[in-house]
Amino acid sequence: MKKSLFALAVLGAFSGVAAAQSSVTLFGIVDAAVRYTDNNGTKLTELTNSGLASSRLGFRGVEDLGGGLKAGFWLESAIGNDDGSTNAQRFWHRRTTISLMGDFGEVRLGRDLVPTFTGYADFDVFGTNGVGDVSKLHTGVVTAAAAQRPALDTLVRADNMVSYFLPSNLGGFYGQVSVAAGEGTVGKKYMGGRLGYAAGPLNVGGFYGQTESTGDDDFKTGGIAAMYDFGAFKLNGIVSENKFRSAKERHFTFGGSVPVGAGLIRASYTKVQGKGSIDGNDADQFALGYVHNLSKRTALYTSYALIKNDGNAYYTVGGKGSALGDDSSGFEVGVRHSF
Amino acid sequence: MKKSLFALAVLGAFSGVAAAQSSVTLFGIVDAAVRYTDNNGTKLTELTNSGLASSRLGFRGVEDLGGGLKAGFWLESAIGNDDGSTNAQRFWHRRTTISLMGDFGEVRLGRDLVPTFTGYADFDVFGTNGVGDVSKLHTGVVTAAAAQRPALDTLVRADNMVSYFLPSNLGGFYGQVSVAAGEGTVGKKYMGGRLGYAAGPLNVGGFYGQTESTGDDDFKTGGIAAMYDFGAFKLNGIVSENKFRSAKERHFTFGGSVPVGAGLIRASYTKVQGKGSIDGNDADQFALGYVHNLSKRTALYTSYALIKNDGNAYYTVGGKGSALGDDSSGFEVGVRHSF
Amino acid sequence: MKKSLFALAVLGAFSGVAAAQSSVTLFGIVDAAVRYTDNNGTKLTELTNSGLASSRLGFRGVEDLGGGLKAGFWLESAIGNDDGSTNAQRFWHRRTTISLMGDFGEVRLGRDLVPTFTGYADFDVFGTNGVGDVSKLHTGVVTAAAAQRPALDTLVRADNMVSYFLPSNLGGFYGQVSVAAGEGTVGKKYMGGRLGYAAGPLNVGGFYGQTESTGDDDFKTGGIAAMYDFGAFKLNGIVSENKFRSAKERHFTFGGSVPVGAGLIRASYTKVQGKGSIDGNDADQFALGYVHNLSKRTALYTSYALIKNDGNAYYTVGGKGSALGDDSSGFEVGVRHSF
Repeated sequence: MKKSLFALAVLGAFSGVAAAQSSVTLFGIVDAAVRYTDNNGTKLTELTNSGLASSRLGFRGVEDLGGGLKAGFWLESAIGNDDGSTNAQRFWHRRTTISLMGDFGEVRLGRDLVPTFTGYADFDVFGTNGVGDVSKLHTGVVTAAAAQRPALDTLVRADNMVSYFLPSNLGGFYGQVSVAAGEGTVGKKYMGGRLGYAAGPLNVGGFYGQTESTGDDDFKTGGIAAMYDFGAFKLNGIVSENKFRSAKERHFTFGGSVPVGAGLIRASYTKVQGKGSIDGNDADQFALGYVHNLSKRTALYTSYALIKNDGNAYYTVGGKGSALGDDSSGFEVGVRHSF
Repeated sequence: MKKSLFALAVLGAFSGVAAAQSSVTLFGIVDAAVRYTDNNGTKLTELTNSGLASSRLGFRGVEDLGGGLKAGFWLESAIGNDDGSTNAQRFWHRRTTISLMGDFGEVRLGRDLVPTFTGYADFDVFGTNGVGDVSKLHTGVVTAAAAQRPALDTLVRADNMVSYFLPSNLGGFYGQVSVAAGEGTVGKKYMGGRLGYAAGPLNVGGFYGQTESTGDDDFKTGGIAAMYDFGAFKLNGIVSENKFRSAKERHFTFGGSVPVGAGLIRASYTKVQGKGSIDGNDADQFALGYVHNLSKRTALYTSYALIKNDGNAYYTVGGKGSALGDDSSGFEVGVRHSF
Repeated sequence: MKKSLFALAVLGAFSGVAAAQSSVTLFGIVDAAVRYTDNNGTKLTELTNSGLASSRLGFRGVEDLGGGLKAGFWLESAIGNDDGSTNAQRFWHRRTTISLMGDFGEVRLGRDLVPTFTGYADFDVFGTNGVGDVSKLHTGVVTAAAAQRPALDTLVRADNMVSYFLPSNLGGFYGQVSVAAGEGTVGKKYMGGRLGYAAGPLNVGGFYGQTESTGDDDFKTGGIAAMYDFGAFKLNGIVSENKFRSAKERHFTFGGSVPVGAGLIRASYTKVQGKGSIDGNDADQFALGYVHNLSKRTALYTSYALIKNDGNAYYTVGGKGSALGDDSSGFEVGVRHSF
């Protein structure tokens, strides 16, 4: 999603002193979709955003410090382009980091995605966006037992994080460890990591992390994921588990995609199983979609997803109303433009 | 107001792959004025913004997809440059859209101006800004009858809007139809359109729209407007009506402008008439101004306006305090800079 | 801090008409630090921002109007890069101004730093950032006497301000007078100024200002400051006083810096004395730091500061908890990157 960036031609100048050529990159995505959802009979037609990729506006840059050392910054804001909104709490919601990079890898400071999110999100054929998004099935923890749900602010991103990334020259191995300072707020103290191997058609990895939550109990999450490109099609799978006190939530995702000319057919199935104190709070999600690329930067897309909730599971594909123990379905048609 | 844009020279690059030259345009306006207002004796001197044109910062771009098809995006934020504020509810308050354009015209998705605003605003000699702005006389509906005022979020812009614009090659005819999804919120479900003809010195058009409001009653607005450039001067007129339940509000505007060297003298008179349940809630606005262009991008300006309210009409030119059934006047001197 | 700006190569265009080459400058700083603080036993480890320089993103530009006249704008936002936040109340918190400049000097309108802040802040060896920042000792007025503390929104910046700056060709003399409109809000009506002389190794100046506060009583602040560059080291001093009703607060700062290769050692001592109704509410701050420049744009830094409060003085170097009449200390290690 962050691949198509546009480098602004920038002429560096230090208060009158001539300086080396440098660069700041402006990048972004605007993605809008007409979406129809039905949550156990509560129907809604809406114009929404980010059905294929998350709408955003960002600035980033890298400075070569010499001797193999580099410094970089990254500022990325979320855009609610259906109604002009941004993240109310954090304008630079998606990422605000400063990095030092070298042969040793990268040290990155600030708000960023946590490795226990990217650890499975990178393997979701729907890119954790739209009605077919798999991440909503991972972040509802712990299913329909409000009193047992941990206070958490680390499921997708974390504030106050210090991360170390392995360098890119390890023959396909990649990895990251991250620690986020809680700063006295429940649900923010986090540590986690991921380790993987990507070479040729194969990408496989695992992740684990924990967040200090209410009553000093830790919320724990971990899993493994893999993807293989057979050429004519790609297959991917995710197995993971979330745990808080006596409640466990397991996720099994199996998906794939088939390129068809300028298009891509995408399909995914996810099973969520509640165990322990949420035993029987299960859900199944079926998702099917098609992306038609008008160019490298612009695509039309359509997706359909159906969630069947059992017990007190209450997942929805989006929209309004509740689907506690019942069905939720959604259909969308949209357009995504990157710049 | 959006005419003087600056195209950043941008070098496109797709993750290592060379790509065609593209462009992102950064544009904006900063406009500040010292304003003095007197609302029935309540006086205020302030530094304010947007006396000549609305302060803003935006990014936009267009991609040529080949075969006559284009994709475009537009992000535009409002700036309260007197105090550093932005729109609290929506950072990208002014516009967030994605478009597909071709010989067929333009399909545009997102938050944008509604055609029932541009339908008359394009004909206001004060550009709907400053003390002489005509739009405040259209958007106070329904005059001084709070219980009868409709809940509306569609008077200037609308969220969740899908618009279709006619192509520009119709021999002077232009037009737009727009539909905004209510998404379950009162006062947001809208449909409207405008149709006009602009050729040589003449521009004439009409508009109509309705918004679903409280009690499923519709708020309705419509009107016609015209402008003629005689060379030595321009004249313009607007006639429109707002309607909600048994209340009607009619607006008659007559204005003109005279270029004088690098300057422009502007004058406008508007009559508002309450009818039905707000009968006699009338108002008259007299506005006079002068704009002095220092360059195409920078101008000094001054404006004066007086509103005389009758009955329970309560319009003010800005500032603090009430002018219910009484007078409101304002004077401002400012500077506008576009980039 | 605003010296290393990068000018974007911008191609001006007015709606189809060719225009002169112009420029918009994008600039910013991202600064993150790991900070440990101890406020009378309340300890906190955090990732914070702006330990060496305030994190920001800005856009600015200047247009040559001919005849020595120029127009300019400046938009500058604060960035909380540890958690992605911005200033909740004002996105363009740091500065939003429009200026006309010429041989006569500069007239600047909008939100900006007040001269009674820059009057001493320019002489703080810690640049009013991080644990060693001297400004927190000036803006706590009036120390630990809540009922006596004035309502103020003009200690660092002011809204609705009109400023006049002397031109730069007065043989080293510089100066500014500023007036901010209160617009009916307590603590916002301000007038102040500064006058100084900077030539060769010497910079010396004075400042004075007052803000209308609760009960129409004025808050008054004034002082003098000087800096001398001996080559091998720099020395600086500040003497100032804040006054509200019968409470007075005096500040004495003495500091210096020593360049060491690519680095800079910084040290500063400040004495705060409460007088009148806050007699004996004194505090001492000791600060020591080191900055290591990796390039002109990127630096590593570390700082330590200790505050000893007497009486009801309650200053802290940052972090959480209270240090009323007791000690507060902090240590940080960080990295700053400008673009």
